[in-house]
Amino acid sequence: MTFLTNQNELMTKLEDSTEEIINLRRYFHQHPEVSFKEENTAKYIKSYYHDLGIETKNYGSGYGFVVDINSGNPGKTIALRADFDALAIQEENDLPFKSENPGVMHACGHDGHTAYMMVLAKHLYEMKNKLRGKIRIIHQPAEEVSPGGAKSMIDAGVLEGVDNVIGAHVMSSMPTGSIGYHNQETQTGRANFSITFTGKGGHASMPHLSKDAIVAGSYFVTALQTVVSRNIDPFDTASVTIGSFDGVGSYNAIKASVELKGDVRIMKESTRQIIRQRIQKIVNGVCDMFDVTADINYDDNYPVLYNDEKLTDQIISAIKQAKIPEITEVFDCGPQDPSEDFAYFAQDRPSCFFYVGCQASDGSNHPHHSPDFFMNEDCLIVAAKAMGTATLDYLQ
Amino acid sequence: MTFLTNQNELMTKLEDSTEEIINLRRYFHQHPEVSFKEENTAKYIKSYYHDLGIETKNYGSGYGFVVDINSGNPGKTIALRADFDALAIQEENDLPFKSENPGVMHACGHDGHTAYMMVLAKHLYEMKNKLRGKIRIIHQPAEEVSPGGAKSMIDAGVLEGVDNVIGAHVMSSMPTGSIGYHNQETQTGRANFSITFTGKGGHASMPHLSKDAIVAGSYFVTALQTVVSRNIDPFDTASVTIGSFDGVGSYNAIKASVELKGDVRIMKESTRQIIRQRIQKIVNGVCDMFDVTADINYDDNYPVLYNDEKLTDQIISAIKQAKIPEITEVFDCGPQDPSEDFAYFAQDRPSCFFYVGCQASDGSNHPHHSPDFFMNEDCLIVAAKAMGTATLDYLQ
Amino acid sequence: MTFLTNQNELMTKLEDSTEEIINLRRYFHQHPEVSFKEENTAKYIKSYYHDLGIETKNYGSGYGFVVDINSGNPGKTIALRADFDALAIQEENDLPFKSENPGVMHACGHDGHTAYMMVLAKHLYEMKNKLRGKIRIIHQPAEEVSPGGAKSMIDAGVLEGVDNVIGAHVMSSMPTGSIGYHNQETQTGRANFSITFTGKGGHASMPHLSKDAIVAGSYFVTALQTVVSRNIDPFDTASVTIGSFDGVGSYNAIKASVELKGDVRIMKESTRQIIRQRIQKIVNGVCDMFDVTADINYDDNYPVLYNDEKLTDQIISAIKQAKIPEITEVFDCGPQDPSEDFAYFAQDRPSCFFYVGCQASDGSNHPHHSPDFFMNEDCLIVAAKAMGTATLDYLQ
Amino acid sequence: MTFLTNQNELMTKLEDSTEEIINLRRYFHQHPEVSFKEENTAKYIKSYYHDLGIETKNYGSGYGFVVDINSGNPGKTIALRADFDALAIQEENDLPFKSENPGVMHACGHDGHTAYMMVLAKHLYEMKNKLRGKIRIIHQPAEEVSPGGAKSMIDAGVLEGVDNVIGAHVMSSMPTGSIGYHNQETQTGRANFSITFTGKGGHASMPHLSKDAIVAGSYFVTALQTVVSRNIDPFDTASVTIGSFDGVGSYNAIKASVELKGDVRIMKESTRQIIRQRIQKIVNGVCDMFDVTADINYDDNYPVLYNDEKLTDQIISAIKQAKIPEITEVFDCGPQDPSEDFAYFAQDRPSCFFYVGCQASDGSNHPHHSPDFFMNEDCLIVAAKAMGTATLDYLQ
Repeated sequence: MTFLTNQNELMTKLEDSTEEIINLRRYFHQHPEVSFKEENTAKYIKSYYHDLGIETKNYGSGYGFVVDINSGNPGKTIALRADFDALAIQEENDLPFKSENPGVMHACGHDGHTAYMMVLAKHLYEMKNKLRGKIRIIHQPAEEVSPGGAKSMIDAGVLEGVDNVIGAHVMSSMPTGSIGYHNQETQTGRANFSITFTGKGGHASMPHLSKDAIVAGSYFVTALQTVVSRNIDPFDTASVTIGSFDGVGSYNAIKASVELKGDVRIMKESTRQIIRQRIQKIVNGVCDMFDVTADINYDDNYPVLYNDEKLTDQIISAIKQAKIPEITEVFDCGPQDPSEDFAYFAQDRPSCFFYVGCQASDGSNHPHHSPDFFMNEDCLIVAAKAMGTATLDYLQ
Repeated sequence: MTFLTNQNELMTKLEDSTEEIINLRRYFHQHPEVSFKEENTAKYIKSYYHDLGIETKNYGSGYGFVVDINSGNPGKTIALRADFDALAIQEENDLPFKSENPGVMHACGHDGHTAYMMVLAKHLYEMKNKLRGKIRIIHQPAEEVSPGGAKSMIDAGVLEGVDNVIGAHVMSSMPTGSIGYHNQETQTGRANFSITFTGKGGHASMPHLSKDAIVAGSYFVTALQTVVSRNIDPFDTASVTIGSFDGVGSYNAIKASVELKGDVRIMKESTRQIIRQRIQKIVNGVCDMFDVTADINYDDNYPVLYNDEKLTDQIISAIKQAKIPEITEVFDCGPQDPSEDFAYFAQDRPSCFFYVGCQASDGSNHPHHSPDFFMNEDCLIVAAKAMGTATLDYLQ
Repeated sequence: MTFLTNQNELMTKLEDSTEEIINLRRYFHQHPEVSFKEENTAKYIKSYYHDLGIETKNYGSGYGFVVDINSGNPGKTIALRADFDALAIQEENDLPFKSENPGVMHACGHDGHTAYMMVLAKHLYEMKNKLRGKIRIIHQPAEEVSPGGAKSMIDAGVLEGVDNVIGAHVMSSMPTGSIGYHNQETQTGRANFSITFTGKGGHASMPHLSKDAIVAGSYFVTALQTVVSRNIDPFDTASVTIGSFDGVGSYNAIKASVELKGDVRIMKESTRQIIRQRIQKIVNGVCDMFDVTADINYDDNYPVLYNDEKLTDQIISAIKQAKIPEITEVFDCGPQDPSEDFAYFAQDRPSCFFYVGCQASDGSNHPHHSPDFFMNEDCLIVAAKAMGTATLDYLQ
Repeated sequence: MTFLTNQNELMTKLEDSTEEIINLRRYFHQHPEVSFKEENTAKYIKSYYHDLGIETKNYGSGYGFVVDINSGNPGKTIALRADFDALAIQEENDLPFKSENPGVMHACGHDGHTAYMMVLAKHLYEMKNKLRGKIRIIHQPAEEVSPGGAKSMIDAGVLEGVDNVIGAHVMSSMPTGSIGYHNQETQTGRANFSITFTGKGGHASMPHLSKDAIVAGSYFVTALQTVVSRNIDPFDTASVTIGSFDGVGSYNAIKASVELKGDVRIMKESTRQIIRQRIQKIVNGVCDMFDVTADINYDDNYPVLYNDEKLTDQIISAIKQAKIPEITEVFDCGPQDPSEDFAYFAQDRPSCFFYVGCQASDGSNHPHHSPDFFMNEDCLIVAAKAMGTATLDYLQ
């Protein structure tokens, strides 16, 4: 049977490339670039492909591009997505391949995503004539920062002719060897907003001549708590956070204005609307209450990441049946708090996003986005094999 | 000199009537009637005058009336005001003349005001031909409860032809024998309001389907604190109190509406407007914030009690110079927190309102409006002599 | 096969008893009694059994009792629970069998639960020799009011020898003919609390001499919102409601104390502890902030209702396979907001609680606990057949 | 009469020195130095005196010094105080003598205080043998910034042998030609504090794993409003302001800590204690409520400026009787909102601090501490003559 033959061949090729994957990952780790500035990263990946005689094609306004693998045989088209941006964090790990760029670090694992995907793409390209349909490898920039790199690539047509999209993320909270997944709503949607309340400055000894913006901002924060506590169905999911309250001033002067920045997470798009409306009403109320004005910038960005039920069942079932020796467990990990701009792909095409455990072998805690984020590199072959298996099964 | 002769005669007459004053006060104490319901009290006072052949004349919609003492000689007209209503308080004192009316008590001293004024009126009436000008004794009902008894009497013309008004209040916080006074703004003005916030009731397990009126009312109370803390000149005087928060309900249901009652005190009429506007804006803000509606009843009632500088100086100077043996001290007691509807008289005519100490001789604390309010009856002769002296001096 | 024969026999018996069930339900509807006062209701049910020669046995401090149906054959013991208390609500329906007891109404459907269970018990008793194991019919009082009737019956040993428990509730939000179910956490757990904050009363014009309990209570309510908004996992379920804020007073006096009553809902017992601790800390904080004291009564009552996965799968599967003509749909209805003291049985024994649609045929809305609650009586035969089927299948 | 002769001589001398005063003032205006950094300013003043053969003597840890004028005749010792520091403000006036020091400006008028005092000192020194007692001219640094320059000079003994102290301040809100004064409590006392609330940072999508410091700080600000609204006698004066709320962060992270800075104003030292205790209790409450810790720095600095009644009456009376042609009005200007470290002198010795109007002749508004602060230089001769008159009268 073709599938089994192909599957065995791909697994063997990947095993033989384990060191290459790790070396690529270490290269990226050492040379991280923040979102929307990944010029050298993109160049490096492209030259890898070009050296292999594989063409690349740019999409969108950033450094994103694709590699198309056409089997020449009829069939569906699957897109595999890997993101390649790093974070504005100063690495605190002591590694031979520690970040060389001050204040920039691959603290989320995108270095690994890109490394395994490049090698997987190479081998799928080598085997293309044995396959059916087409594969589009999407190398995406700027996942970390709104508006994200996915949107611009999609707007530029990266999903034209694509039937489905698969993505994966390494997860430091899951044991290395495990594959986590969840069906339907899987990662939170997000909005961000900033609000400037402007009153009137004055001397601290004459409050009646001023309109105290710190007071207005503070009451706003307390009233904002009722959005989640009173307006959201207890069985639904939502959070509203003020992450920044800039009311920096002096002891003796009343502040004329303050700027607040906030974050909203939801698991249903209808909840997004409820929260946005409630925040607007609370802002209006504060303006009335304290005779201040407000300037709001409200940015509804990453959607809820929705995993297509049928596709997810199919992929997870394929991975389970493949009995890959490095995979010790495949489990429903439940919904995940963070947002992820893969959600834009999933909004456009039935998609599946799954998780690859990368926990340190001693079980120690190195959270994503922390300066001591740590990836157990054994996860890379797991990711490559799982994604490869899912792809072969899909194209079967 | 006429004044001295008259003064000596009046003082002697009052001294000889000390017991009568006390007996009258005890009668009223034993038979108190609440504001606007003082039918029998008024009847009793009138019959006292009628027995002496002195006419009375009703003014206003309540039980208020006056006694006019016309010297037949040219001169100014002075009004002397005494109030006669009691409070809805159950007396806890153990006295032979304890209140016989359950739940009603002369806990503010109006019994004493009326008693000394009746006897003073009697003697001034006896001496009328030796005087100049006219005296109008105002027996006023309903000082304790908004809109007060003064307003209706004034509207009915009780101050027509009157040049000035004098009033006095016993004070349990001042030693018996002392006369307190203050010039210009002397007692707070007041407003009262009630607000009903209406949201939508519901089951406690489904907050998102309701609009929680208790939450709206609570945030209102916290925002209301900023009126005094931020909008009032620190050198000015103001208080805003929510005295009633009726959100009585059950454990498991979200309240659809709450009713709040509030009180405002000010010492300048301009401050009254600032507070009223701020409260309205905060109510508007709460309605926006929590998607509730509000029904406000705002009642600007007692004005700031303003003592005319010239009249007050003249009266206090007369009392000091009279060297009345029972008066041990005449002092500027500063402004007083409570409101007093004598302020309506003072709004219409240059007026003076002063205080007569009535503290227990052991200095113990028996505050006005408490169930153990106690009046040292030695204050009554002090009040009568001080008011009599002020009157004779004024008409001189 | 015995099961099929029994099943057919029981279904036929129940069909033939439809009118009896309805008549019983109407009798209970007309004669409702509130929780812990169901003396006549219990008497009536018992006399029904006694007339059939069936014994009853009391359990617990209330009016609860059981009927034991012993097949004489080996096997497991299943308990079936029906509750029989009514609510303190004045019925507003116009029905021939409208409540005769003023202010009391079967507004939750327990009349129906009891009616179908009595007839089902009668027929199971008739068929007992053909069955295996034992059936215990639990007629439970006082489901509506904490601490509930279940707890006392369990404490008295009602579950001794019982392997599993099944219960059902009619649901006016689900179409008549439908059976709803959910696995694992199915109805919220609950706590109730009351808090009295005591400061110091005073006159509204002298706030500095008092400690304003309304202010303390209001800030408490605003701070309480952070429990759900900040301390609960957005993927978890919780609500905290203040259902009663008793700060009733007058315009001009500062309140010395206020009493608040609150309600907590959770879906995990660990969340219960988080909330209880947070509320205690916020109360402590308010006492510090406003120099008041607090008296808390915190009552952790109904547990989360947890449906045993295996038992629930088995029962739902049996109901589906039975192809009962009156049952149009069997669906996962998701978790339900309200709490239910069946949760105590489920805490002690693997149990299953399912829902029987009772919506009016025109789809109109008549919520439980409202004065116009309405039960489509066609649901009663559905309930009887579903419960009977589950029982036979279980004992098979 | 000696006094009149001296008075006439001094007034003439001052008139003749008007231009010198203005030139000195302009020099200082052009070369401002901020508090505690007035090295060149002090040097300049001293060299003025040294050129006249007048000795100076340093006091305290800053650049403060005195000039002693000893009449050689018996009598009391009066100290006259002038401050010489500038503010960290960028001047926005377009003047020939505009500040040459970027970001530093004499925006409060201390340039004028020092200028008139130097010339007055010169003339008093010339006339010393005709006088009685002693005069100590206090040139004080650092009035604007806590702990102020006065304290250190006093600690070093600058008031030893001094009976009384007089100071004056130009006032842009009062017409040039006017002298304002107030008796007893005249300028507010002050405290400053900073509070750091520390919780626990985290990702905005996982609030339950963090302790949100912005939430804690915001509730603190709202609770703080009750200090003035509920704990202060409405007839007393107080303000509490949060002038800085540093919670600067990002959209997506929960802040671990925030720093607040605040300002307190009072008119009675007993009120200072009430406020300090209330703030501490509210901080404690916030820590309990939100499980955060707090680090407080509380600095009770400038006392209430208390004008000695007798000294003030004497000085104001002398100024009035002197009928100085440039003085158009002497009036009780009431208490003033700002704080002033002259209060330290007044705490140690019976003192008087009065105000010299310096409003632009077109009545336009140029508030102190604003970048367009403007001094009508006609005020300088008024200040010199008023202070000179007060001094001669005092030493008489």
